[in-house]
Amino acid sequence: MPAVGASLPRKDALDKLKGVAKYIDDYNFSDILHVVTVRSQHAYGRLINIDKTEAEKMPGVAGVITASQIPGVNAVPLVFNDEPFLAEGFVRFHGEPVALVAAETLEQAQAAAALVKIEVEPLKPVLSIRESLAADAPRIYKENNTFSHFRVAKGNAEEAMKTAAHVFEQEYETPYQEHAYLETNGVIAVPGLEDSMTVYGSMQCPYYVHDAVVAAAGISKNKARVIQTTTGGGFGGKEDFPSVIAGQATAVAKIFNRPAKLIYKREEDIIASSKRHPGLIKMKVGTDEKGKIVAAIIDYYVDGGAYATLTPIVLWRGTVHALGPYECENIHVNSYGVATNKVPCGAYRGFGSPQVIFAGESLIDEIAVALNIDPLEIRRTNGYKLGSKTATGQLLDQSCGLMETIEKAGERSQWASKWQKPAERQGNIRRGIGISSVYYGVGLGAGGKHLDRVGTSMTIMKDGSVHCAIGNVEMGQGARTVLAQIAADALGAPFELVNVVETDTSMVPDSGPTVASRTTFMSGNSLMLAAAELRPRLLQVAAKMLDAASIADVDLIDGKAFLKNQPDKKQIGFKELAEQLYVCRLMPSAFGWFVAPDSSYDNETGQGNAYFVYSYSTNIAEVEVDMETGEYKVVRITSAHDMGKAINPQQVEGQIEGGTLQGLGYATMEEIRHDGNGRMLNNAFATYILPTTEDTPEIDPIIVEHPYDRGPYGAKGFGEVPLMGIAPAISNAIYNATGVRIRKLPVKPEKILGLED
Amino acid sequence: MPAVGASLPRKDALDKLKGVAKYIDDYNFSDILHVVTVRSQHAYGRLINIDKTEAEKMPGVAGVITASQIPGVNAVPLVFNDEPFLAEGFVRFHGEPVALVAAETLEQAQAAAALVKIEVEPLKPVLSIRESLAADAPRIYKENNTFSHFRVAKGNAEEAMKTAAHVFEQEYETPYQEHAYLETNGVIAVPGLEDSMTVYGSMQCPYYVHDAVVAAAGISKNKARVIQTTTGGGFGGKEDFPSVIAGQATAVAKIFNRPAKLIYKREEDIIASSKRHPGLIKMKVGTDEKGKIVAAIIDYYVDGGAYATLTPIVLWRGTVHALGPYECENIHVNSYGVATNKVPCGAYRGFGSPQVIFAGESLIDEIAVALNIDPLEIRRTNGYKLGSKTATGQLLDQSCGLMETIEKAGERSQWASKWQKPAERQGNIRRGIGISSVYYGVGLGAGGKHLDRVGTSMTIMKDGSVHCAIGNVEMGQGARTVLAQIAADALGAPFELVNVVETDTSMVPDSGPTVASRTTFMSGNSLMLAAAELRPRLLQVAAKMLDAASIADVDLIDGKAFLKNQPDKKQIGFKELAEQLYVCRLMPSAFGWFVAPDSSYDNETGQGNAYFVYSYSTNIAEVEVDMETGEYKVVRITSAHDMGKAINPQQVEGQIEGGTLQGLGYATMEEIRHDGNGRMLNNAFATYILPTTEDTPEIDPIIVEHPYDRGPYGAKGFGEVPLMGIAPAISNAIYNATGVRIRKLPVKPEKILGLED
Repeated sequence: MPAVGASLPRKDALDKLKGVAKYIDDYNFSDILHVVTVRSQHAYGRLINIDKTEAEKMPGVAGVITASQIPGVNAVPLVFNDEPFLAEGFVRFHGEPVALVAAETLEQAQAAAALVKIEVEPLKPVLSIRESLAADAPRIYKENNTFSHFRVAKGNAEEAMKTAAHVFEQEYETPYQEHAYLETNGVIAVPGLEDSMTVYGSMQCPYYVHDAVVAAAGISKNKARVIQTTTGGGFGGKEDFPSVIAGQATAVAKIFNRPAKLIYKREEDIIASSKRHPGLIKMKVGTDEKGKIVAAIIDYYVDGGAYATLTPIVLWRGTVHALGPYECENIHVNSYGVATNKVPCGAYRGFGSPQVIFAGESLIDEIAVALNIDPLEIRRTNGYKLGSKTATGQLLDQSCGLMETIEKAGERSQWASKWQKPAERQGNIRRGIGISSVYYGVGLGAGGKHLDRVGTSMTIMKDGSVHCAIGNVEMGQGARTVLAQIAADALGAPFELVNVVETDTSMVPDSGPTVASRTTFMSGNSLMLAAAELRPRLLQVAAKMLDAASIADVDLIDGKAFLKNQPDKKQIGFKELAEQLYVCRLMPSAFGWFVAPDSSYDNETGQGNAYFVYSYSTNIAEVEVDMETGEYKVVRITSAHDMGKAINPQQVEGQIEGGTLQGLGYATMEEIRHDGNGRMLNNAFATYILPTTEDTPEIDPIIVEHPYDRGPYGAKGFGEVPLMGIAPAISNAIYNATGVRIRKLPVKPEKILGLED
Repeated sequence: MPAVGASLPRKDALDKLKGVAKYIDDYNFSDILHVVTVRSQHAYGRLINIDKTEAEKMPGVAGVITASQIPGVNAVPLVFNDEPFLAEGFVRFHGEPVALVAAETLEQAQAAAALVKIEVEPLKPVLSIRESLAADAPRIYKENNTFSHFRVAKGNAEEAMKTAAHVFEQEYETPYQEHAYLETNGVIAVPGLEDSMTVYGSMQCPYYVHDAVVAAAGISKNKARVIQTTTGGGFGGKEDFPSVIAGQATAVAKIFNRPAKLIYKREEDIIASSKRHPGLIKMKVGTDEKGKIVAAIIDYYVDGGAYATLTPIVLWRGTVHALGPYECENIHVNSYGVATNKVPCGAYRGFGSPQVIFAGESLIDEIAVALNIDPLEIRRTNGYKLGSKTATGQLLDQSCGLMETIEKAGERSQWASKWQKPAERQGNIRRGIGISSVYYGVGLGAGGKHLDRVGTSMTIMKDGSVHCAIGNVEMGQGARTVLAQIAADALGAPFELVNVVETDTSMVPDSGPTVASRTTFMSGNSLMLAAAELRPRLLQVAAKMLDAASIADVDLIDGKAFLKNQPDKKQIGFKELAEQLYVCRLMPSAFGWFVAPDSSYDNETGQGNAYFVYSYSTNIAEVEVDMETGEYKVVRITSAHDMGKAINPQQVEGQIEGGTLQGLGYATMEEIRHDGNGRMLNNAFATYILPTTEDTPEIDPIIVEHPYDRGPYGAKGFGEVPLMGIAPAISNAIYNATGVRIRKLPVKPEKILGLED
């Protein structure tokens, strides 16, 4: 039985269930130093002085490190390298790392950290997008407080808007979202021989961290090594941030020539690590009489926080996807990554899309209401089909399953019988149903093209077991299992014999980040290439053992080699083949190296093939609202997804369930609040409220498979998509129940009751 | 300037000099158990009972492990797999491991170990080759107490001997030699997730250890990982033995699911680890009137100890090399690996050769004396030249520098003016000069052919630094430096940017052992293959940057790319090339896989190509003997070597110096003594006497380069050779000074005075 397509058990499940999985805080090294961060208590200000005297006198303290002591460069290598490992000259957000205290015990480091005196001359902070863009705003970043600006321009949106039958214009706002991974950020830097440095940690992007270690230590890249430890969730939150603490721990380890452990408490993780960008989206859409979109003008702003970090690339994805999966000949998108004096925002499942999706899917719902069209029908009318062209002018010539997700979700949710207009709803407890459709460009796209390649390494051991090293990480999403399934089938090995190990930068060349729902597609393809190199060697051995004239006469499936024309005559097991491979001294290892299919894109016009392929989904949410209190419950989510091919259907369903709940949190309750000085008010799970099992609706996952010919067994990308469309589906359902349109997430009872904007 | 051929500084020198290099005992892991071995106090006996009761009650003791508890198989995987990790049923040598005590501290483990009661029914041990082969010997191994028997048969030695003008027949004996590496054996086994096991340790053969971990743990090979730590010397002593303790530590780690550390004290290392085989060599050589050898009959016995371990392959090498580098049409060699109740013998620099070399080079000296021929001249007459055929009938059709080593050594030592017959020497202090010539088959030879392949992996980093992972280890011999030189030139990279890391079985496929002077040749070739895959990609990038029509128009040497026809026009640095390689998303990594040139050999007749190529050397020793006390001093050693190409001349000289001193110890002072019950009497450096700097003669190293066309830059193998011919050169010099012929090593004053055999 092929492994691909089967709901095989996760390789890491048992150890995680038993509690023996080893997370970074479970690691220890002899002679280790514990590091505690001293943070700015001002959102913005001039850094006058740091007084370490008292702190350094404390028992067990090895020293207090500040910016000037960093052995290498004091800049986190990300997109613009504008963030320092430790503040220098200025502090730019409340909670920014200013100094590091290294001590024999964590308690000693904490005690000393309290005695480091940071003298700051406070400056007026900028705390929101609107403040930052105001004409009289303080200049906190370059000349216009803007990290990045992108545009997409197809046709002539201004002209087309004038001729549109109907024009709809609205503003939408979306909040921060905290990743709330089970495991906080943490690393251990271990100095090695000959100026080398190894960093262990919880992370998504070992190769980004590798860059950071090299930068902070001031060493060449072949002297740095990054080993990813079992990672308790990432969701984008461990894309950029581990680079910060890895560089810091590296500096400490290098200065004291001792291992340095830097593990975040939950409170500081929430204060200091990246979040989903708050978004402000101004949408203007023109349609014809029947609701067919003819023009769209979209301005998209994100609050990037104090440093650029990932804002430019987060913004780019949102820009490209701004209108959602709808045909439109005349579209104009402008997007801006805006600086504020708050924690830098970064990647979060969806990566700049959920903001515009909330806006777009809300507006199309508003259009449907206004034009008296069934919201599902308006998506049928406008949605991408084979042959459609995207906002960037890209022809969708294969693997476009949007329509099937709409039909399947509609059917399974009984949309037709459940949908009725709000006005027709009655009683205090009212049901509502809402829909959203999304598309998602798989991989890094034209913007991150130069990083969109992935290496893997595969070795057949003498006993037939197979060792695979990968460049993308397992962070809880199931990559090790799904990739083992692909590797097993591609090689012809039994799934049980294939092991995919956690990422170590010294085993696999720079494979870019583990983001953008690219792992199954990229690492899967890379493993297939490695397998394609090894498989002929196994067939060669099999041909010899089966007395076949050529390798074309033999096949190898699921761990058995046999003659194609006499499959039952004699079968050779995988172990025997492997043994013989070694007897023949054939090379048992191969690297795979997969370069993403080419995308072309003109950043000036925002036209071209932004991504090589897209995944699609449709979500239908059902809610039940108490009209008196505004309290509501999400009752049911039907979630249909075209990911090309479900390598492991059970894991796909798991992703849908997890993503749905995360999307539900975003839609209904999650928000970060700051005081007027830019201090975060709710940096604990007692105050940052997350959905729990109590809040979990009935979830009906639907798999739709429109295979992509370049994908491993047809697979595209998928991991992020389940979260992305949940918020507007719920918000639209709330409208459908109550007639109240919420344009600013989260959807709270106060807003339903009109007590809050 | 090319790196190859330059005396570049060792990559590991500084850290080792500063004392920061990290050996296995410097490693710690949290929650670690310390393991102490409980050993047999009998050389031979039936194991009746092991009483752990008292020991397990001791504070801090996690448990006492005996054979039946080993999770996997209780057999060290080597040649015959006949040695158990822990004794079972019988004990077969004094010091054999019977039980393992695991405790929180080393002291606690030691205290408890003293309380483990081993009940043995003693049996009469067999303690020497002669005892073991006696007709009435107890049967301690199969039917004839013999592990292995090999033969070489060319021509008709019996018949030719009858017609020889002169026949010479003698017996020679050689002693044990202890490796005396600076760092004792030690490992740490660390249990990992999902049934995995990682073993760190001091070792030569990570892939042998990998087999042992798999065997002891009972896991598949892709779940085991072996990481070689900085290794303080091996000399063959860390070929087989680390497998024993790695398996033991693995068992403990697996049983208690905690890291287990097993580090040997010097005394137990000497008692329990392998040594050079004591040898007994019976030689009969016939010559013509002028001393040209016409027939040779050789019986070669080695004392293998209680288990076969490496005896069969050690014996095979000695068998093939039995006569030394001399032409002979009629030769008959029979060899026997004999079982005794002593510690198993294994590999030691030279690997079964130094024993027969001592015999052969002594006998040829005796022939020269008897026939009144200059000992140097008799080697000229008989020695291998281009076109010679070896004892196994192999044609030496290239890279045969023996004659040049004889001429150069003779010249530099002023042999012609110094050599005179013993009878002509006078006075109480007498000088003497002696010569020996040796040849050495590089690599594993026909006997180990299936293991004679080596993998490497090479990655060009984005900053132009180069990471190489190798399958052979650095154990102090300088491999990391020499291989970096080869990699640098092969790739065109600056030497400074190339780093070769210590071996990790998860990075490079099974590359066999680090033995047989094969590392430079095998790993060097493997790196060249990896470089050959990467270099065209760099040239492709360079061609683009230099506007060249094709990669044939550009060259890349020592980190600079340039147009071949305009080398000075524009040069592109390696860093820029590497950056561009990444921009172009070309695969920056490659595996190398080098399979040794084919050897063919018929084990029945002992005829064929035993090895693919041979290295050669000639040593000339000068001694000064006090005729009254028998005390003597080795004054000077002239040591000429053909290793094909000296990749790093300084390191070659270092190897000559080290090997010379180790050979001098073998020749002059080293021996292991046992009491009548098989108990080793001198298991400490206070009693096992080694040469020191005080004993070091003037050493004159001479490099002779006859390149081998399959070698990396012409290199063959070399590491073992400097030790091999020292003993007979010294013994022959002693004869030359004194007229006393020593046929049993070591050459001690008592023997010179005739007070001891």
